[in-house]
Amino acid sequence: MAISFIDRITVSDVRYRLPPGAGSDAVHVEPEYCLAVTQLFSGDGKTCGTGFALTLGEGNKLVCKAIDMLARPLKGKPIDELMSDFGRTARELADDPMLRWLGPHKGVVHLALASITNACFDLWAKSRGVPLWQSLLDLAPEQLVALLDLSYLEDLLDQDAAVEMLRRELPRRAERAAILQQGYPGYDTSVGWMTYDDEKVRELTKRAIDNGFSAFKLKVGSRDRARDLRRAAMLRECAGERGTIMFDANQQWTLPGAREMCKKLSQMKPLWIEEPTHPDDMLAHAALAREIAPVKIACGEHIPNRVVFKNFFESQAVHYAQADCTRLGGVSEFLTVALLASKFRLPVVPHVGDMGQIHQHLVLFLHIALGNEPLFLEYIPHLRSHFVFPAELEGGRYRTPQEAGASTDLKELLEQGCS
Amino acid sequence: MAISFIDRITVSDVRYRLPPGAGSDAVHVEPEYCLAVTQLFSGDGKTCGTGFALTLGEGNKLVCKAIDMLARPLKGKPIDELMSDFGRTARELADDPMLRWLGPHKGVVHLALASITNACFDLWAKSRGVPLWQSLLDLAPEQLVALLDLSYLEDLLDQDAAVEMLRRELPRRAERAAILQQGYPGYDTSVGWMTYDDEKVRELTKRAIDNGFSAFKLKVGSRDRARDLRRAAMLRECAGERGTIMFDANQQWTLPGAREMCKKLSQMKPLWIEEPTHPDDMLAHAALAREIAPVKIACGEHIPNRVVFKNFFESQAVHYAQADCTRLGGVSEFLTVALLASKFRLPVVPHVGDMGQIHQHLVLFLHIALGNEPLFLEYIPHLRSHFVFPAELEGGRYRTPQEAGASTDLKELLEQGCS
Repeated sequence: MAISFIDRITVSDVRYRLPPGAGSDAVHVEPEYCLAVTQLFSGDGKTCGTGFALTLGEGNKLVCKAIDMLARPLKGKPIDELMSDFGRTARELADDPMLRWLGPHKGVVHLALASITNACFDLWAKSRGVPLWQSLLDLAPEQLVALLDLSYLEDLLDQDAAVEMLRRELPRRAERAAILQQGYPGYDTSVGWMTYDDEKVRELTKRAIDNGFSAFKLKVGSRDRARDLRRAAMLRECAGERGTIMFDANQQWTLPGAREMCKKLSQMKPLWIEEPTHPDDMLAHAALAREIAPVKIACGEHIPNRVVFKNFFESQAVHYAQADCTRLGGVSEFLTVALLASKFRLPVVPHVGDMGQIHQHLVLFLHIALGNEPLFLEYIPHLRSHFVFPAELEGGRYRTPQEAGASTDLKELLEQGCS
Repeated sequence: MAISFIDRITVSDVRYRLPPGAGSDAVHVEPEYCLAVTQLFSGDGKTCGTGFALTLGEGNKLVCKAIDMLARPLKGKPIDELMSDFGRTARELADDPMLRWLGPHKGVVHLALASITNACFDLWAKSRGVPLWQSLLDLAPEQLVALLDLSYLEDLLDQDAAVEMLRRELPRRAERAAILQQGYPGYDTSVGWMTYDDEKVRELTKRAIDNGFSAFKLKVGSRDRARDLRRAAMLRECAGERGTIMFDANQQWTLPGAREMCKKLSQMKPLWIEEPTHPDDMLAHAALAREIAPVKIACGEHIPNRVVFKNFFESQAVHYAQADCTRLGGVSEFLTVALLASKFRLPVVPHVGDMGQIHQHLVLFLHIALGNEPLFLEYIPHLRSHFVFPAELEGGRYRTPQEAGASTDLKELLEQGCS
């Protein structure tokens, strides 16, 4: 089933309107969930790799245009060859001299790299006829590390160290593989969108508990701070003393404001407070991380690349690394960040810009290969009807995907010949 | 001469091929200098504000597309009203919910904001019939601060503190205004592009000395480290013991590599070493800043916004803040960063993505209004034939521009009705 080469590359700007209130947060009242989709078609016409980045609106077309430009060097490449040494390709694409100035390694062009990279990984797993998590587990440590661009991490993690980290954990893989049967626990973000009224949050939390969830997230960061506090207390009440709750401020507070609100919200005993202030303000995150203990800081959906993650880890500015393979430079840089997090003994709890489709594979790999705690994976169901193989949860746990690839295929694009 | 309102907005993708070798650095062998240009036409048809961001190649069209989307809310706005409270507009544009996800506040969309903002400032100064430096000096401290978005700086610099900083310096303005007659000193970046051969570097340095320059920059960061060291020693020799030399690595070294090279290059007694490693690696910059003293660290052309600058300043990761109003969100965020730098008593020495056209105005303002040392302003002449009013140097000093506006008009776009 060897795939010859990448014969054709298409880009699609796919947008979905959500039900009222869904996806709303402190920044976005009525977001569109938009996917900038890359499809890579194999030379035999039988297989197509699908990858995407998430954006929230019209800007999606900028990412699509960037994919057009950035993906060109992949045309004609044999996929096996490409993936035997993907770290080099990732670096070459990221350093395209015509586009590098626009970042580097952040913003529109980096989102384009995410989409392209994710398509490569999907095509690769499909070409091997196995799910992405399995493709990754099948690699020897050296092969896995060859997928990664570790440049600018040399002071902490070079290739030898990365190989050694993976090798050291090999003996524990068999035991940890139990997660494949158990399923990876989910947590429910969709009980607590910003514009949902209190009654709806209560109802959805109750329903989520009935469906087996025990962890729930609430959007905060509204202009009405009393509302935030009231709803936070309400969620604690609904979840019960033993339920896990998290609050997400979506960057809305200034540092002084975050100090005040985190202190008050801490009384509701959340596991974490997420994105308390501007995502670039690492020192503010580090200060808050010290000040609000034992409550933790989660962030990462707007940390653009491995170099910034390295700085956050070294500064103890984050406890839960919410890496996202649709924000970082795709699966490759996601894995790099996870190795780095593992070095700092910090858990990766992905932000799911992909609605969990790709990340359900990645967290299985991280748990089995690195011992990343099987904490939980965010669950957001709004786009599930659009995926060919939507993530399936049972009793609050992701069912281990069995289909070949990264579970990224979209029904709308099937007719374009993707299989 | 009141301008009614912004009647029409045009965007132009303007690209220039450079002479062989010009502009080459450790990343770019044959860069195109590209401008993503915004033009704002007044309702009376008589005046046009021109702003731009610099990019280095085909990606320029992404910035142009982003300008198209981002600039829409400006249509129909009275320019005086807009500029009486520009900080609010800057924040609203930067937080456009359709585009914010793509950054936030970095990359393609932020470059688009730079272009738009710079066009607003040019139009505003033209509408007042004075050069930009004069327009800024004419404002009371409260009015100047109203041009700025200080959000996420509250822990260090709020509106009152910013006003107070400017007010405190008012008595010293008259004395400092002598710079207007003397001219602001320049330094010459164009003696030492990466692919120029040794002979050419020698010749150009000699010529620059004859033209009155006493400070010169050399590109380093080549794969051939011996070449870097040889040329660095050569530049020191050409410049003489009393000449000022700087080395620019354009992000090419890893931290271990930077340690080794900075140590060796320090023997040539440069004033600074610029962008020694990845621009996002703040902790690496901070470590190098400690280790290579008394040689200084310069960076900023790839620091995307005021929040990241705040972190660099607080971490003592930079000595010379190379803010660039074509990289930051335009003149407005440039001024914000300069106020912040001033609070830390750090000099701003702009990177001139605008070839110094706008920055020649801004450094005059910074010196007179804030006491920013009149160190020197980078000089890069490659595009001078394309500007209607190119920056003029005499005896190594920028001649104070006298024309109304920000000196941004391009000859190519004049026929499109810009005046």
